[in-house]
Amino acid sequence: MTKQTLQVDEERLWRHLIEHAQIGATPDGGVNRVALTDTDKSGREKFIEWCKEEECTISIDQMGNIFARRKGTDNSLPAIMIGSHLDTQPTGGKFDGIYGVLAGLEVIRTLNKHNIETRHPIEIVSWTNEEGARFAPAMISSGVFAGVFELDYAYSRIDKNGVRFDEELQRIGFKGSEPVGMRKFKATFELHIEQGAILEQEKKTIGIVTGVQGIRWYDLVIKGKETHAGPNPMSLRKDPLKAALPLLDEIYKLADKFGKDSRVTIGNIDASPGIRNTVAGKISCTIDLRHPDENTLEQMHTDILKITQKHNNQDDDIKVETTSVWNSPPVYFNHDCIDAVEKAVDKCEVSSMKMVSGAGHDSVYISKVVPTSMIFIPCKDGISHNPAESIEKKHAAEGANVLLNAILITDKIDLT
Amino acid sequence: MTKQTLQVDEERLWRHLIEHAQIGATPDGGVNRVALTDTDKSGREKFIEWCKEEECTISIDQMGNIFARRKGTDNSLPAIMIGSHLDTQPTGGKFDGIYGVLAGLEVIRTLNKHNIETRHPIEIVSWTNEEGARFAPAMISSGVFAGVFELDYAYSRIDKNGVRFDEELQRIGFKGSEPVGMRKFKATFELHIEQGAILEQEKKTIGIVTGVQGIRWYDLVIKGKETHAGPNPMSLRKDPLKAALPLLDEIYKLADKFGKDSRVTIGNIDASPGIRNTVAGKISCTIDLRHPDENTLEQMHTDILKITQKHNNQDDDIKVETTSVWNSPPVYFNHDCIDAVEKAVDKCEVSSMKMVSGAGHDSVYISKVVPTSMIFIPCKDGISHNPAESIEKKHAAEGANVLLNAILITDKIDLT
Repeated sequence: MTKQTLQVDEERLWRHLIEHAQIGATPDGGVNRVALTDTDKSGREKFIEWCKEEECTISIDQMGNIFARRKGTDNSLPAIMIGSHLDTQPTGGKFDGIYGVLAGLEVIRTLNKHNIETRHPIEIVSWTNEEGARFAPAMISSGVFAGVFELDYAYSRIDKNGVRFDEELQRIGFKGSEPVGMRKFKATFELHIEQGAILEQEKKTIGIVTGVQGIRWYDLVIKGKETHAGPNPMSLRKDPLKAALPLLDEIYKLADKFGKDSRVTIGNIDASPGIRNTVAGKISCTIDLRHPDENTLEQMHTDILKITQKHNNQDDDIKVETTSVWNSPPVYFNHDCIDAVEKAVDKCEVSSMKMVSGAGHDSVYISKVVPTSMIFIPCKDGISHNPAESIEKKHAAEGANVLLNAILITDKIDLT
Repeated sequence: MTKQTLQVDEERLWRHLIEHAQIGATPDGGVNRVALTDTDKSGREKFIEWCKEEECTISIDQMGNIFARRKGTDNSLPAIMIGSHLDTQPTGGKFDGIYGVLAGLEVIRTLNKHNIETRHPIEIVSWTNEEGARFAPAMISSGVFAGVFELDYAYSRIDKNGVRFDEELQRIGFKGSEPVGMRKFKATFELHIEQGAILEQEKKTIGIVTGVQGIRWYDLVIKGKETHAGPNPMSLRKDPLKAALPLLDEIYKLADKFGKDSRVTIGNIDASPGIRNTVAGKISCTIDLRHPDENTLEQMHTDILKITQKHNNQDDDIKVETTSVWNSPPVYFNHDCIDAVEKAVDKCEVSSMKMVSGAGHDSVYISKVVPTSMIFIPCKDGISHNPAESIEKKHAAEGANVLLNAILITDKIDLT
């Protein structure tokens, strides 16, 4: 990195990450800071305290989203947003979400320390309940911000004990009055751990995220004939699990056909009645197909239907049914934002690769209303949503440096 | 059938089967007469009433097993037993168990009607709780009779509401005082529906049952690496379900290798955590292997271990573990009893085939202490333990004719 390139303070960023991870810390080294719990409240308060130390102004909207604003030289301009989330899975790690928020704070600390002014205001956002672990669906608050969900819908979500979202938001003191989505932004950058092992495998420090994979979900049911495991000879059986083996194998092979960007996951499989001494009458599976390109995903979809139809026609007594249950098209991030990240990477002289996100993020929804890009750093073995989640201190700083420089670049240009 | 061959009354047998099926009848044509319920009590009382009409003497032992005795000309000789059970599964059919009991009664009716005396007394038995649907394990009362279970163990069994076996036996008035297993028998024959589709497929009326398949149960666990369905490329995954497909395929192929008498059932399969957008960390399956020959079963066992070991060694990150959970050796019925059934089949001029039972029956335990054989008749599509359970009236009579003649033959010979 050249001397002219502004850098964050590696030690200071790391110290704050580790300190904040004490809030909801679990004995196995993880963090349990599920949305709208007392630990979430403590995590938010600590974040706000730190933002105030940096003279940021705090606003809280009706969804409990927190905006910490550092003034620009022209405050009539829309702010540049740095955002992620503070909540975790119940068995979460130290870095998912919080890294993007605290790196934003480190960016502001660095600007303050060097007395650097930006034209645009900068706002750090923490989106409420990104994980959706307690209140489904995930990414609900960025969803309300982007107009994907209604506020009333979000408020009416209940946890497994029947407690409402809005009651808990009120209880922890974060039900603000600002209408959700009223803020206008020039651009937003979300810095996040990869939650996959590609960067590690490719030995790259920065993922320049150009978009998010499209996702198609299916339910697959294979029906045969439930029968006793003893009396009926193999030749007379209609065993749906036996029939499922070559079918599932063909489905997995779609990943070979459609190349390295495709993902095929059969995450759940169930036998019914699922009794040890009974040939199952029914096998149920889920299928999760992903690809960053909508046309390719559509071809995968067509293939799934062909494959299941073929197996449905092979034996009159084995019925194969496929139901589409969700279709989330690929997201393509903003070119100028991606460019800004690329230029920042060059400035910071770090290794990088372009990639798409396989997981959902608040940026998926926010990109509908604000020019968006994301920046990934490696996480050990691709492990996330797990106490074992781990990143390198140096990578954390390098990601924040890219974020800082992408903001400075964006501050100077007009987006097309 | 030659004129000399004694025959049961087809219509009378059928009428009694249909009349008794009213006790516990369900709207879908099935029967719910679970052991030690009020309907079981009614079913027992109706059976006893009918036996008394035929001048049988009733005895009830401490397990509630009912013995209905028709005198012989030499009552110092041990009785010939005809036995099965009156209880059903909660969603049972009209014929499983009860057919063997009422066919026994029809045999006695026929002998009475024709004033035929036998040397040996004949006793019809109804074993308590063969199904084990309410009180596990199944076949518990024939088990106590054969010395497989202790009486106290059986009494202490509880249903899902915590009610004890002996309390319910007492409550329905069938806790007798006769010690279990004190009766001595010359031989026993159990007539039963096949509960499989072999006879139907082979177009045979009678199955001459030479024994019961041996059974080996296993738990199979395939461990991989739980990971997010999005970010991680296929090449970096350790998906235990993908690894399971060829492994399970090899296990199914054991049935080809070991011929038509072998049975391979994978009745249950589970993914953990079983989440749609997560590559499973673990797949768990059950394996049920059956074969009538112990040596063959042992070879199948060796192969299972070899196959799973081979797959365990293919990838350091995919672990395959196999645990044996049950081993029930094959049962070989008594040669003289099998011979008697074969001779009866010849006399009755019905089509037949030798076969082994794939399911467990009271005869499995009783054969340990009394020379035993079984007789099967076809049941439609092999369906049993189901309201759709169905047999042909003609087959019911033909089975009873074989039973009757097997008893008459056994009455005349000395068993070796």
